Amino acid sequence: MQIISNPERGEWATILERPTQTVNDIEAIVTEVFNEVKSNGDAAIKKYTTKFDGVDLESNVVSQEELANSTKLVSLELQKAIKTAKDNIEAFHAAQKTSRVEIETTKGVQCWQEKRPIQKVGLYIPGGTAPLFSTVLMLAIPANIAGCKEIVLCTPPNKKGEIASEILYAANLCGVTKIIKVGGIQAIAGLTFGTETIPQVYKIFGPGNQFVTVAKQLATKYGVAIDMPAGPSELLVVADETANASYMASDLLSQAEHGTDSQVILVSTSKEMLNSVSTEIETQLEVLPRKAIAEQAIANSKLIYVENDALALDMINEYGPEHFIICTKNEDFYVDGILNAGSVFIGDYTPESAGDYASGTNHTLPTNGFTKAYSGVNLDSFLKNMTFQKISKEGLLNIGETIELMAEAEGLQAHKNAVSIRLKDIK
Amino acid sequence: MQIISNPERGEWATILERPTQTVNDIEAIVTEVFNEVKSNGDAAIKKYTTKFDGVDLESNVVSQEELANSTKLVSLELQKAIKTAKDNIEAFHAAQKTSRVEIETTKGVQCWQEKRPIQKVGLYIPGGTAPLFSTVLMLAIPANIAGCKEIVLCTPPNKKGEIASEILYAANLCGVTKIIKVGGIQAIAGLTFGTETIPQVYKIFGPGNQFVTVAKQLATKYGVAIDMPAGPSELLVVADETANASYMASDLLSQAEHGTDSQVILVSTSKEMLNSVSTEIETQLEVLPRKAIAEQAIANSKLIYVENDALALDMINEYGPEHFIICTKNEDFYVDGILNAGSVFIGDYTPESAGDYASGTNHTLPTNGFTKAYSGVNLDSFLKNMTFQKISKEGLLNIGETIELMAEAEGLQAHKNAVSIRLKDIK
Repeated sequence: MQIISNPERGEWATILERPTQTVNDIEAIVTEVFNEVKSNGDAAIKKYTTKFDGVDLESNVVSQEELANSTKLVSLELQKAIKTAKDNIEAFHAAQKTSRVEIETTKGVQCWQEKRPIQKVGLYIPGGTAPLFSTVLMLAIPANIAGCKEIVLCTPPNKKGEIASEILYAANLCGVTKIIKVGGIQAIAGLTFGTETIPQVYKIFGPGNQFVTVAKQLATKYGVAIDMPAGPSELLVVADETANASYMASDLLSQAEHGTDSQVILVSTSKEMLNSVSTEIETQLEVLPRKAIAEQAIANSKLIYVENDALALDMINEYGPEHFIICTKNEDFYVDGILNAGSVFIGDYTPESAGDYASGTNHTLPTNGFTKAYSGVNLDSFLKNMTFQKISKEGLLNIGETIELMAEAEGLQAHKNAVSIRLKDIK
Repeated sequence: MQIISNPERGEWATILERPTQTVNDIEAIVTEVFNEVKSNGDAAIKKYTTKFDGVDLESNVVSQEELANSTKLVSLELQKAIKTAKDNIEAFHAAQKTSRVEIETTKGVQCWQEKRPIQKVGLYIPGGTAPLFSTVLMLAIPANIAGCKEIVLCTPPNKKGEIASEILYAANLCGVTKIIKVGGIQAIAGLTFGTETIPQVYKIFGPGNQFVTVAKQLATKYGVAIDMPAGPSELLVVADETANASYMASDLLSQAEHGTDSQVILVSTSKEMLNSVSTEIETQLEVLPRKAIAEQAIANSKLIYVENDALALDMINEYGPEHFIICTKNEDFYVDGILNAGSVFIGDYTPESAGDYASGTNHTLPTNGFTKAYSGVNLDSFLKNMTFQKISKEGLLNIGETIELMAEAEGLQAHKNAVSIRLKDIK
């Protein structure tokens, strides 16, 4: 693996560039599917499920029987693990509850802010070779704590028309209210417009490939909110000479196995550490089942030597990694100074996979530098802030003139009049 | 004004339909401006400012001299009013600060959530006949409390190349770091890509016309976050026989004067109240300077009679108004039951214009039914949630096996390995 040594500040952007995504090419097909689902509902859903997933479904709604069966098909050991993870995720997200913020800004002017749940949410769980049931936990648990009334999960069926038992088990455990066998663009279109079987929702959550990403972006044009724009997974590790090279290598590889477009970066103030990690990666890579994928991702990855921590921190904040591991003796410098990151993992015994599954934090995080403006999924993602106010006669006497003056200066006489007409009665 | 009596539930959607917006027609021009600003920076900005605002600017950056002068040009009376409003808005938004959420989810597994400021934000303030300086307060004050480092304000110049003194005064008072004389699509493009004079930002806030709205949506494709999709202003009032008809009429008119596409709705369980308000509106309308605008908006507005409060609440939640005024004897029924609204105003002495200017709540709110999923602007709009975790040896012993089992079941061996390699050393 190539080590980049002491790059100039002006080169950082180029070195840290993400693998490009070509979005424009697939907009046409996404628009087509949306239009058809909007016009033809379930008939269009059925057509595209046959076309893209290769299965012709009688019904796309998961039955009570399928749900009941799923429990039998998940080993007791895995059920226990899922429950342990659920407990931690639940504890961390329940701790994020806030009480109403109330303040009398001026005598007689009572203002408060309350969070109320988004009533209908859609959770998208991608298909693929392995069942990504952990994402079910990460989305359904906070939705439930928030108090969302309808929690609709969409995930593509396999060629036999089935959903993985682990996904059904997790969905049932975490309070999903309806599970639909539908994937890709047609799933997002269904949640956007609603069909005979798919409820229309107000916000769509969850990861997906480029088609799903573009579909979610199109959904926003129809007034549906989304959790965040998605992109390939990424990890940045900062490590000094005190870090454990084999641990660092294992973390970098755990991100690299996600996909060939995953990006992993190691920044270090120690050239020895960079060399050791590089050697370790090659060794550990050999025995991985997903070696072919990880190898390609590793080929795009970067090992970067920088002279000091201050430079390293600046570079990391410019990149804004989704996952950020800190293994340095002065970890507080990075913990306090990191401005742009999705989730931060500190110390030798905090592998990134802990946050993917079971520590309690959420694994649905902004990528592609979006950490600069977006939060990862958290309890608030399923709530809306609403404000309330109640003004007494005394309160209006206190702020009435201020409102009148400002409204007049903005040329909005009717705004002023709504105050004046009341003040006349009070005075 | 027409009164709709007891509409069937099936008709609600049609009755409550918002004035349509045609977005597709203007995408071409928005894309053109974006492409040109991306390629040519300030040269393109200058070109479009000449074209759209009819002024050829030497420099588009507001100077210290212009700032200093602005204070002299705002009356002391208005300065005082602006400061009073600032105090209240500051108090309400500062009260929204939260401390870090920290929890040990499992012995040895420490997880916490912290909010950190978005470093660079852009505030867009529309131009027009009157200076909308109140929006400067609503955006710059929370940005400052959040700790955003760069707060860039863009607003179009008039034909003399000037910005209204009230806007400059408010921007200076509230800690805006740079003010640029640029409006419309080219302002949003400048904030998205950055130019020689306009800093590139991570999130763009503020209202605007359809061109600005589409431009903000396009900005999201380039990874810039936005506060929310904007739309014409709207107000829904629920009033029973105990309400004051002339107050209700004044509130409805205060929204109606915003624009011909504003929507105002009165829902009541009292036919007498509907009639009285209708009469009052006609009387009050006559003397308004913006009568022509308000009249058109009122023509599209609806007075709706419903038989009982439960039906009224259902209808209001289906509509999801930006502003919601409650003037009924059983106000708690509505306060507790409202699920979808931007800001709620309770009782006879709480005109909506209080929240527009000076009570302390924010006036940048979701419209067009987006209250179902979006929050109004609040302190959190300028912050990101980040999560942190630190696991001890004991902690990893406690949750390690859970992670291993789940990673294996998802077919992600390298994720498992990142735990196993550590557990081997600990055990």
